[in-house]
Amino acid sequence: MTLLEAIAGPRDVRALPPSALPALAAEIRRFLVERVSRAGGHLGPNLGTVELTIALHRVFDSPHDVLLWDTGHQAYVHKVLTGRAAEFETLRRAGGLSGYPSAAESPHDVIENSHASTALSYADGVAKGLRLRGSDRRVVAVVGDGALTGGMAWEALNNLAGTAHPVVVVLNDNGRSYAPTAGGLAAHLAALRGGRRRTLFEDLGLAYLGPVDGHDPLAVEDALREASALGRPVVVHCVTRKGEGHPPAERDDADRLHSVSAAGSAGGRTWTDVFGAEIAEIGADRSDVVCLTAAMRGPTGLDPFAARFPDRVFDVGIAEQHAVTSAAGLALAGLHPVVAVYATFLSRAFDQVLLDVALHRLPVTFVLDRAGVTGPDGPSHHGMWDASVLPVVPGLRLAAPRDPAQLRELLREAVAVADGPTAVRYPKSSAGPDIPALRRVGRCDVLRDEPDAVGLLVAVGPMAQACLEAAEELAGHGVPVSVVDPRWIAPLDPALVKIAASHRLVLAVEDTTSTGALGGRLAQALAVVGAPTRAGTFALPPSFLPHGTRAEILRAHGLDAAGITTTVLKRLKEHS
Amino acid sequence: MTLLEAIAGPRDVRALPPSALPALAAEIRRFLVERVSRAGGHLGPNLGTVELTIALHRVFDSPHDVLLWDTGHQAYVHKVLTGRAAEFETLRRAGGLSGYPSAAESPHDVIENSHASTALSYADGVAKGLRLRGSDRRVVAVVGDGALTGGMAWEALNNLAGTAHPVVVVLNDNGRSYAPTAGGLAAHLAALRGGRRRTLFEDLGLAYLGPVDGHDPLAVEDALREASALGRPVVVHCVTRKGEGHPPAERDDADRLHSVSAAGSAGGRTWTDVFGAEIAEIGADRSDVVCLTAAMRGPTGLDPFAARFPDRVFDVGIAEQHAVTSAAGLALAGLHPVVAVYATFLSRAFDQVLLDVALHRLPVTFVLDRAGVTGPDGPSHHGMWDASVLPVVPGLRLAAPRDPAQLRELLREAVAVADGPTAVRYPKSSAGPDIPALRRVGRCDVLRDEPDAVGLLVAVGPMAQACLEAAEELAGHGVPVSVVDPRWIAPLDPALVKIAASHRLVLAVEDTTSTGALGGRLAQALAVVGAPTRAGTFALPPSFLPHGTRAEILRAHGLDAAGITTTVLKRLKEHS
Repeated sequence: MTLLEAIAGPRDVRALPPSALPALAAEIRRFLVERVSRAGGHLGPNLGTVELTIALHRVFDSPHDVLLWDTGHQAYVHKVLTGRAAEFETLRRAGGLSGYPSAAESPHDVIENSHASTALSYADGVAKGLRLRGSDRRVVAVVGDGALTGGMAWEALNNLAGTAHPVVVVLNDNGRSYAPTAGGLAAHLAALRGGRRRTLFEDLGLAYLGPVDGHDPLAVEDALREASALGRPVVVHCVTRKGEGHPPAERDDADRLHSVSAAGSAGGRTWTDVFGAEIAEIGADRSDVVCLTAAMRGPTGLDPFAARFPDRVFDVGIAEQHAVTSAAGLALAGLHPVVAVYATFLSRAFDQVLLDVALHRLPVTFVLDRAGVTGPDGPSHHGMWDASVLPVVPGLRLAAPRDPAQLRELLREAVAVADGPTAVRYPKSSAGPDIPALRRVGRCDVLRDEPDAVGLLVAVGPMAQACLEAAEELAGHGVPVSVVDPRWIAPLDPALVKIAASHRLVLAVEDTTSTGALGGRLAQALAVVGAPTRAGTFALPPSFLPHGTRAEILRAHGLDAAGITTTVLKRLKEHS
Repeated sequence: MTLLEAIAGPRDVRALPPSALPALAAEIRRFLVERVSRAGGHLGPNLGTVELTIALHRVFDSPHDVLLWDTGHQAYVHKVLTGRAAEFETLRRAGGLSGYPSAAESPHDVIENSHASTALSYADGVAKGLRLRGSDRRVVAVVGDGALTGGMAWEALNNLAGTAHPVVVVLNDNGRSYAPTAGGLAAHLAALRGGRRRTLFEDLGLAYLGPVDGHDPLAVEDALREASALGRPVVVHCVTRKGEGHPPAERDDADRLHSVSAAGSAGGRTWTDVFGAEIAEIGADRSDVVCLTAAMRGPTGLDPFAARFPDRVFDVGIAEQHAVTSAAGLALAGLHPVVAVYATFLSRAFDQVLLDVALHRLPVTFVLDRAGVTGPDGPSHHGMWDASVLPVVPGLRLAAPRDPAQLRELLREAVAVADGPTAVRYPKSSAGPDIPALRRVGRCDVLRDEPDAVGLLVAVGPMAQACLEAAEELAGHGVPVSVVDPRWIAPLDPALVKIAASHRLVLAVEDTTSTGALGGRLAQALAVVGAPTRAGTFALPPSFLPHGTRAEILRAHGLDAAGITTTVLKRLKEHS
């Protein structure tokens, strides 16, 4: 029996003699490399937190003490030590273990949101609440150096420093998020690692302990005990190496195997690839185009652009608010900024898109990768919200390409707009083949035209292929439906309203939450003109969706050819 | 002729001999006290920036050099010195001078958004852009110490420190925003004012000059010249006193006359007053209720609660993201947090509401003051967006009270919800008299019931009175319409859909942007059930609205009794 097999929970970790800890750490590392390589998931970050997590569970008594993981993809070791090793076979699969903490899985898990920089704010709130309730439960938050570049981490540090609550902030400093950490903070942390004794944490009024070798479990344990005894907010600076103990990860300069795909997962040219190649071409044609990323240069496809125009790409760190407003500044200086960001992370900067960009009518283009269902990263990574909140922004134009050719065309149209913001959204998947249009009407592409159509499918972005397949199947049932791709989903194209008004049933098929989607805006526009059309959206339910593959989740909600066919037949029957 | 009368622009400021500057400052102060007391507006902040603004215009050459004002309500002196003194008679009136910088008014104005903490991000972007374009224009950003508690300011400082761009950050440190500045930063700045020589700005990699007496124009001028010559990012720490030189403002401990109302403006019990009294009562009944504010305790009505329960109110500084996520933490600790915030500022924390609160089904209540048209503060203060973006959040329940009794009832209902977030929105205005309901159906109150109604007005929140008056007038025209108050505007109440389905025309009258408003969601729901109803929203246009009084702006968009009457008659005619 291995040491790991004998661990059913944190109590067993605490019972181990200190001399056994290096062997336990080695076993955990082997376990992670084997399981994560097979299932896919975040490898590098978790190899970096092995000893740190062991030490946390020896010093603190979870779940009585509250253990908060920022960007929960660093919590695999925590899952292993809290009784979930056996379930790693199902990691990130539908119905299986989540790739992030999950309260439904374990009482040891608290924060389910995987967006960065939140844990210190949670910690401040939990500590204030426990104090009011007279509880002696301790509060610990683990945060990466990358996440400290996010503004809410600063807001939280400022507040923690203003209290006397004994919150222990474990700074897991590996010098990078996906990319090396950006800005002045990274240089400061490097100076601290080099022995400098003057820290901005202390300037702000927090205690500071470290730097500690994050791969020495007893050193971390000692520091955590000292921190806990201080009885005031304290930062414990643990220096770790992302990918530690796994040579392929340590050698990988790009992202230290931040995440790996499941063995044998399908390839094919992705939307990200198509964007990456096209924006580099646009960069060659237009010297005023510059690109911004929030610590995601590679994953958002900006590497080809950066290779050709290194002076024209800016990595601002995990700082979406700053990405958007500094883009506004670049636009004021006469440039056309392209902000490449995961759709779900743009929620961080809604106010900045609205007031810093749109109110000033500045030409900034947002490129929203991972829009719609993303897959195994679960509820806080699905890009289900942008298509509902961006149409609220006055003057913003939002596009959804159906194929690689349309992504290129719509991206060119977006960067040609000079009087306000534009956005282009596409999913995390292979981009598929091009889908030819029969003709263009207004800004819309007619993809299938049935002279006596009883229904119209408004195929939004990547839903086009499934809509065309459904239309073919419906035709076989003697139910002729046409298919139109609106291309620009906000603001509503009058040509789309006109096309829709000539049909009895209109269904907008959309890879986004149903509340606030295109179909609802179309229904309202049709009601205003008094059309006798029944229009609506057929989209994802207005709820948080669990993890699974993109195809599984879309199918589960009827957003494939078979599901669309069934829904059209059902709606026609209801309304006949 | 006074010195001030001789100043047509910054060139004239630069031409003055240094010895004339104290007299100019005194003239400007007299001018501000007189004009702002008469017109209403931000007095204290502007009395604090008189010498600082004079110095800025002597050292920098606006608009060639780019002068960026954070929270533009401190830019009145800038307006006076850039040729707009004569227009102060019209300050904050419809069609008159804006209370914030406005590019339409002057080439000297850049940032029109009045939300705090944005200027440093703009500065970083403008500086990067100018450098790429080979320009020698200088970039200066003026930011208050209060705004530095906002996370995006930290994101920007981190990025500025990572560059070599010569951005001059003028820190206007008066120790407060509305309220004294919160957290560890405030203590740090106080230590610097006291002579401490170790600054977190330098730790982060920025240069630091100061502290400088911000009321000594020549000292500020010298510091700015030195900063500009450094050729790298630098913080110039100017110590000022809000309300300086005007004894009533200096003496006022509450907010140093942060803003004053126009002489003779009407009183009456406001929505804020009703909330403030009721939440204090709820606090007495429920020991688990705690309140949070982002530097707005008084303006959001929390003073009565704070007076009774000082340990249960938390001011987090200008830090809406932290307010929301630390509220999530408080809820995890078993409390029921109430986050009192201006509606427009909640846009800063959409991601946190969505993922930190709603994904975790935490019972947090958001109280949105200044929802809808606010009036003289203009486009970035109108609370026009919350009623469109909050319904996108799964599980969030959003209420809009029509009268004081309903505010009390809905607030009680909101804090009774234990399994997810709730929000209550109301405007900046007097709350008016109570409006009795005929009966309750589902969650809706029927306010007027016409047996043979041809139309239904869905009166959202404070629109009830105007809807009832319109219904009365329409009855006089022989056009019977009923009126229903949905009370909870998200999620959609099935009872409302059912009531609406029995009418030919349904108009939701709403004090918010039309995109994503209740009427559109209702239209879609009616289309799904196949009702023969023409439903839609009658709300504010989907654009940024200028300043003016609330009544003026509502009237201009037909959101008064006369406008509603006209619209109903027009829609009925179109669809007959």
